[in-house]
Amino acid sequence: MREDLIISNVISALKSVLKHDENKPIALSQPWFNGNEWKYVKSCIDEGWVSSSGEYVDRFEANLAEFTGVKHAVAVVNGTAALHISLLLSGVKQGDEVLIPALTFVAGANAICYLKAVPHFIDSDDKSLGVDANKLCSYLKDTAYMKGNVCYNKKTQRPIRAVIAVHTFGHPADLDALLEVCRKFNLELIEDCAQGLGSYYKNIHVGNFGKVSAFSFNGNKIITTGGGGAVVTNSLEVAKIAKHITKTAKIPHPWFFIHDSIGYNYRMPNINAALGCAQLENIEKFLKNKRALAKKYQEAFENLEGVSFFKEPEYAKSNYWLNTIILNEEYSFIRDLLLVKTNSQKIGTRPPWMLLNKLPMFRDCPSMDLKTSEYLEKSIINIPSSTFLGEGYVKE
Amino acid sequence: MREDLIISNVISALKSVLKHDENKPIALSQPWFNGNEWKYVKSCIDEGWVSSSGEYVDRFEANLAEFTGVKHAVAVVNGTAALHISLLLSGVKQGDEVLIPALTFVAGANAICYLKAVPHFIDSDDKSLGVDANKLCSYLKDTAYMKGNVCYNKKTQRPIRAVIAVHTFGHPADLDALLEVCRKFNLELIEDCAQGLGSYYKNIHVGNFGKVSAFSFNGNKIITTGGGGAVVTNSLEVAKIAKHITKTAKIPHPWFFIHDSIGYNYRMPNINAALGCAQLENIEKFLKNKRALAKKYQEAFENLEGVSFFKEPEYAKSNYWLNTIILNEEYSFIRDLLLVKTNSQKIGTRPPWMLLNKLPMFRDCPSMDLKTSEYLEKSIINIPSSTFLGEGYVKE
Repeated sequence: MREDLIISNVISALKSVLKHDENKPIALSQPWFNGNEWKYVKSCIDEGWVSSSGEYVDRFEANLAEFTGVKHAVAVVNGTAALHISLLLSGVKQGDEVLIPALTFVAGANAICYLKAVPHFIDSDDKSLGVDANKLCSYLKDTAYMKGNVCYNKKTQRPIRAVIAVHTFGHPADLDALLEVCRKFNLELIEDCAQGLGSYYKNIHVGNFGKVSAFSFNGNKIITTGGGGAVVTNSLEVAKIAKHITKTAKIPHPWFFIHDSIGYNYRMPNINAALGCAQLENIEKFLKNKRALAKKYQEAFENLEGVSFFKEPEYAKSNYWLNTIILNEEYSFIRDLLLVKTNSQKIGTRPPWMLLNKLPMFRDCPSMDLKTSEYLEKSIINIPSSTFLGEGYVKE
Repeated sequence: MREDLIISNVISALKSVLKHDENKPIALSQPWFNGNEWKYVKSCIDEGWVSSSGEYVDRFEANLAEFTGVKHAVAVVNGTAALHISLLLSGVKQGDEVLIPALTFVAGANAICYLKAVPHFIDSDDKSLGVDANKLCSYLKDTAYMKGNVCYNKKTQRPIRAVIAVHTFGHPADLDALLEVCRKFNLELIEDCAQGLGSYYKNIHVGNFGKVSAFSFNGNKIITTGGGGAVVTNSLEVAKIAKHITKTAKIPHPWFFIHDSIGYNYRMPNINAALGCAQLENIEKFLKNKRALAKKYQEAFENLEGVSFFKEPEYAKSNYWLNTIILNEEYSFIRDLLLVKTNSQKIGTRPPWMLLNKLPMFRDCPSMDLKTSEYLEKSIINIPSSTFLGEGYVKE
């Protein structure tokens, strides 16, 4: 049968790129420690600075700002915390709606709910895997109205306050088109850069376009701090508030404990930042490897029937955080079989997230028609992407 | 003047215990790493397990449960997260009130607000520095009423759902008396054990009395994980929910991403748990040192005029996390001068937290009369308490 052939072709292509030895499992995305990780982490333990004070947090923030070109970075405990603070600083309040792709990890929608706001699900396009800005524009023209400066949902009468742009698997969303929609409907743009460290939109690093953006440094990301994230912004004022409220909103004083607003204990510990400083020193090498691995996959999947390797949008230079193949619509029914077969051969693959609008806690949330997301959900497979897998190809 | 004499006596007493060399600053409370910290952390880095998966998290949870005697422990990113989850699992909902001492760190009141519930401030007693259970009982008799099984605030008409017992500076609150109040008014008891690791109420470790309890392993605590905390409970059912919702409520599956409720990204990273495992191995030694230091302070302050060393309540064996002296009421006006003089001589001291009802964001919250808390707030000074400071006294 044709589908058997597609499955065996995909597995062959993966094995050819990965030089796979059946006895050794290949994970989907693992961290790589081959720099100063030991040295920096040990210095934290030796000097006793492992917690909320210590030089590595400041250094990590400065290095991250320098690398991304975003003026200010505030290191936090993880990407979810970064999204929560980004939403808060974008003015999202209880009872507001926030537009968010249905095709993304659950963290953003959860963070919206922490503020007792409501996720409003929108479709993605198959060129970027991110928000379909044109479709969003038409949708809002039909379903929303402006009163004063505020965009309201005609049906729910709730204010629509912001839109979260996700750079899915490291591919930048079409930010110019999105910013145009945001201007038209007075929405705040929040960039979810959890997957996007090292990705550029028209030569500018992602995270520079929204008022506030969120990064993640979880163990499966390009660089890791164990658990960690960052809020980044080009506004000094916003950065100051972000730092203040992620440190329990304590007014700085050597011994008095006075706090001036409801705050969060979201500060990244120094020992985690130490790991991050070492990782960030290698980011250029990591990115080179990532792109080399992607190129190799691209070649291996070039002429296969029924499946294609997902390439970066033309306006972008992507980090290829998770490499992605997409089954043609007529073959999407073989996806689960492919997942079982590859994983049983110890090749780590996974489908994308279940569309958020299908999860029980979000089923009653507003949603646009999600045709493309539905297709992508059932047709995408992420394939092994650990940075070190690209090492051989860089050397070649 | 008599107050000058008191100040110079206090400083002399501190120096005699601390064998203070003026050139070397003595911090209030620093961590101590002299066990397997580096070995375990290094193994995380070497094996690549620094993040949300890895053996140290499970091991830390098991060891913590064993040490405290609480059946189940779930490791989280910090004490604030632990309090947040404890409140959630105690059934606290938007619009509820939660009773909490005005004399405590801001985390608990913040966590109440994360759930859009309302802190309701209560007084502490000067025997435990924790909730005054008798006063609370009288207060509720006057200001609350029962309807069905629910306790309501007569004035606000809001349900009063729970009470947070804080084991202040490591001294257990009077839990039997509090449990009696909870039974009477059908309140859920939450133990804030952030400061209480190694403290016992009538020979039972704190954290065993509430339905859910919260620990902290911040850098200033008896043991540290960099940043970290734990939710503990004797209920298997509660523990399962705690673990599930602190891991984004993801249904376990090797590749599918399905989440069944709003979840949190609160899981402690493995690299932080590795530190915790090593620290916990030394807890008995740490506690011995802490109590030895406290005994030395007790002797040094025994016959001083105008000030006394705070001793554990008679029902308790305390960890003496932060050693505490209390000025007699007529001398509380010298507290700030004492803080300035000691800190300028590099002896780390601090006052307690500003009473929470005085902070701008909590000023409109309900509160009982806080007479004792007012006195304690202006009369308490915490003095250097790092575990290693007790080392000499243990050996003697």
